[in-house]
Amino acid sequence: MSEKEFVKEITKRDVDFAKWYTDIVLKSELCDYSSVKGCMILRPAGFGLWENIQSVVDKRLKAMKHENVMMPMLIPEHMLLKEAEHVEGFAPEVAWVTHGGDSELAERLAIRPTSEVHFAEHFKKIVRSHRDLPKLYNQWVSVVRWEKTTRPFLRTTEFFWQEGHTCHADFDDANDEALQILELYKDVCENMLAIPVVGGAKTESEKFAGADITYTNETLMYDGKALQITTSHHLGDNFGRAFDITYADKEGKEQFVHQTSWAITTRSIGGIIMVHGDDRGLVLPPRIAHVQIMIIPIAQHKEGVLDKAYELEAKLLERFTVRVDDSDKQAGWKFNDAEMKGIPVRVEFGPKDLEKNQVIVVRRDTLEKQTMALDEHLESNLAKLMDDIHDNMLATARKRQEEKTHRTHDKAEFIELIKEGGFVIAPWNGDEAVEEQIKEETGATARVIAFEDADADLTDVKCIWTGEPAKFIVHWAKAY
Amino acid sequence: MSEKEFVKEITKRDVDFAKWYTDIVLKSELCDYSSVKGCMILRPAGFGLWENIQSVVDKRLKAMKHENVMMPMLIPEHMLLKEAEHVEGFAPEVAWVTHGGDSELAERLAIRPTSEVHFAEHFKKIVRSHRDLPKLYNQWVSVVRWEKTTRPFLRTTEFFWQEGHTCHADFDDANDEALQILELYKDVCENMLAIPVVGGAKTESEKFAGADITYTNETLMYDGKALQITTSHHLGDNFGRAFDITYADKEGKEQFVHQTSWAITTRSIGGIIMVHGDDRGLVLPPRIAHVQIMIIPIAQHKEGVLDKAYELEAKLLERFTVRVDDSDKQAGWKFNDAEMKGIPVRVEFGPKDLEKNQVIVVRRDTLEKQTMALDEHLESNLAKLMDDIHDNMLATARKRQEEKTHRTHDKAEFIELIKEGGFVIAPWNGDEAVEEQIKEETGATARVIAFEDADADLTDVKCIWTGEPAKFIVHWAKAY
Repeated sequence: MSEKEFVKEITKRDVDFAKWYTDIVLKSELCDYSSVKGCMILRPAGFGLWENIQSVVDKRLKAMKHENVMMPMLIPEHMLLKEAEHVEGFAPEVAWVTHGGDSELAERLAIRPTSEVHFAEHFKKIVRSHRDLPKLYNQWVSVVRWEKTTRPFLRTTEFFWQEGHTCHADFDDANDEALQILELYKDVCENMLAIPVVGGAKTESEKFAGADITYTNETLMYDGKALQITTSHHLGDNFGRAFDITYADKEGKEQFVHQTSWAITTRSIGGIIMVHGDDRGLVLPPRIAHVQIMIIPIAQHKEGVLDKAYELEAKLLERFTVRVDDSDKQAGWKFNDAEMKGIPVRVEFGPKDLEKNQVIVVRRDTLEKQTMALDEHLESNLAKLMDDIHDNMLATARKRQEEKTHRTHDKAEFIELIKEGGFVIAPWNGDEAVEEQIKEETGATARVIAFEDADADLTDVKCIWTGEPAKFIVHWAKAY
Repeated sequence: MSEKEFVKEITKRDVDFAKWYTDIVLKSELCDYSSVKGCMILRPAGFGLWENIQSVVDKRLKAMKHENVMMPMLIPEHMLLKEAEHVEGFAPEVAWVTHGGDSELAERLAIRPTSEVHFAEHFKKIVRSHRDLPKLYNQWVSVVRWEKTTRPFLRTTEFFWQEGHTCHADFDDANDEALQILELYKDVCENMLAIPVVGGAKTESEKFAGADITYTNETLMYDGKALQITTSHHLGDNFGRAFDITYADKEGKEQFVHQTSWAITTRSIGGIIMVHGDDRGLVLPPRIAHVQIMIIPIAQHKEGVLDKAYELEAKLLERFTVRVDDSDKQAGWKFNDAEMKGIPVRVEFGPKDLEKNQVIVVRRDTLEKQTMALDEHLESNLAKLMDDIHDNMLATARKRQEEKTHRTHDKAEFIELIKEGGFVIAPWNGDEAVEEQIKEETGATARVIAFEDADADLTDVKCIWTGEPAKFIVHWAKAY
């Protein structure tokens, strides 16, 4: 197939963004559909991305003294029922196991939609004294939520995440933890995924079922819709009271623990695709890419070309993840394939380049070509290029996000801006009925009360919808 | 609590091995029971062991060019039914999901007991030509099998494993893969877990449901019962035919693929406990221990002691996993706790040791003490000690395994030896009815036809049970 045909295969991003997205996830071989409705198969490129995110986040969590554990994937129904708001939030989307082999179970078991209740029961057993606190636990698992409409990475019946669960002496300790984790996520999003985020708190109606406060990092996709990319929940003492988790404080008095829970999920891969991808395919942030460098030998049948490719691969492997495309496809096909798969840098060379002791280096984000000498500086030049690519991808995404973020105090303009897409920052009176009306009439939800707007002076500020005194400044947007 | 009381807490290994085992897994804080029948909670020490096994095996698999992927945890019933032997083997122990939220599902879904069928369907989609082969895939997941009687690590309803699934052009390629993986597992067992194994093939009746050949590594526990610690299956073209997975060979002719599947599971942690543990608790192999060194400051309230402990921790962390026990417990309690948890080396010191610029080093396997200078050789001395401990643990286990392994051609002696425990190597006529009789009358199963016995000259060799001509030399044993 010619280069032109190859590129034609994906729908243009500006023509049909949803179709473009589906084309990308399938053709870049990140995932495939499975025989189970709403569940995807993560192929090596897709799972490789998730492994890299795991590796980065896991190291950071361990450096903060979190420990990995593993709770059962099944939850007896009576446990899910203990915390009232929690069960109300999750029961409608639970997959129920009713039979083991040929026998009907006495009590049905949920496949975990999330694991607060297992951790609550475990904390009750192992926490006795203030000396046992904090408990900082995490697990890497998949969870199942019965979704009606699904899309790869963004909303799937089974999805992958880490779920952190911690247990603290009081409200403030738990709050510090929830905020530190949100900051860690922001750092991972911006400095690893090249995705800028707006941090803050959710409104009451948008928070996690069972939480006192839900903190969130929100970001805009290319099409102007928002994505909640990570959340961190302050659970207060809600599970402490529901599961009777107490400890003896320094004075010997029994106190309820305060807890947090937080997650980054495979949804973040959907974010990477929709923030960075273009009409030629996926564009992967270099610090998280499954393969960072694809070496493409040109005229590989010529003497010495393939040998040089393998030699270069071995050398670059010390510092990067590298592959050689030594398939019998044409060079043009290989270039397109590397672009489709979003590989940050491709290194091309043929016999003539080798004579000049040089390679052609093409960066995926801008498709700019440059010549690099095959000398002792190649590795540091490539490392510098990776940083440049990261910086450019983050800056591009940030610029677009800023251009698509508007503040208004005018209702008509608000409605118009929401239609156009992007964040619209506008005041709100804090009334959930009004929040619901805004959602019904504009399609926008309250994404986040940004930290930078949390302490704003609201004197004389009016709700964008009712004109009543405002209580919060909110980032509104249509969202995934 | 005094040192004596602490030790009294565990049942003696020679008094009641099963009770000793349960005491160890709970008191060393490897795991805890959960509210779900047959499912355990892996606590930080237990999951940490599994993470280390994961890390070692994953690196080795990737070095062999295996790629990690992720299949859905749910399997539609009709898919499980496709391969006849496979479904017969697994259907009786499947957990069935019948409801999503409030709705009954049109087709019930199994929680994966193993994932051959997902891989088969995926291979059918992605394999077209001999150029697509081999496909070398792996995933790290948990699986669920509805077990009637369960024991932590050894047999649990949910357990953790990697499952490798590969797809090859022909029988021999697949056989090479299955054998290479068995060799990798043997190397991990012996050189990381310090557990000696006997490799070979299973009999027809003991092989995996759907396999042509099951290769196995078997090992003996302290009580003389065998444990199947890892298996590698040659699936032949059974799934290829059932799922119609074909490829065009070099001549353009459609051929069925041949496949393998293989696993190491959390069961291996049960093996570590039962091979190495003693009456003072767990004894962890140093190369896989969650914490390799516990620093125990004595008289830690004295000036400089705790500071020195943290300083030493920071220095040793570059090469080992290290913790300081700075709790306000007595030193004797801390020694016992480190022993109970099986930490390979503890480093003790008080003010007097610091004056002499030395530490006391106690190895967990033999409880021998030695003095080491606090100088620039400390790290290399400790590294050497870790190797010594590993070598001693492996040699001790190997010696015991050899002492508990007997060959016989006499039926009465065979019955007596099986009663005593251990491997009994004896010939068999290959008749499954005879194998079943031996099991019924002695409790022993055919564990493995060892590679070293596979080519034995069987002229004039008689079956241990019937006196008929022998077909195989088998390791028999009672087993977990």
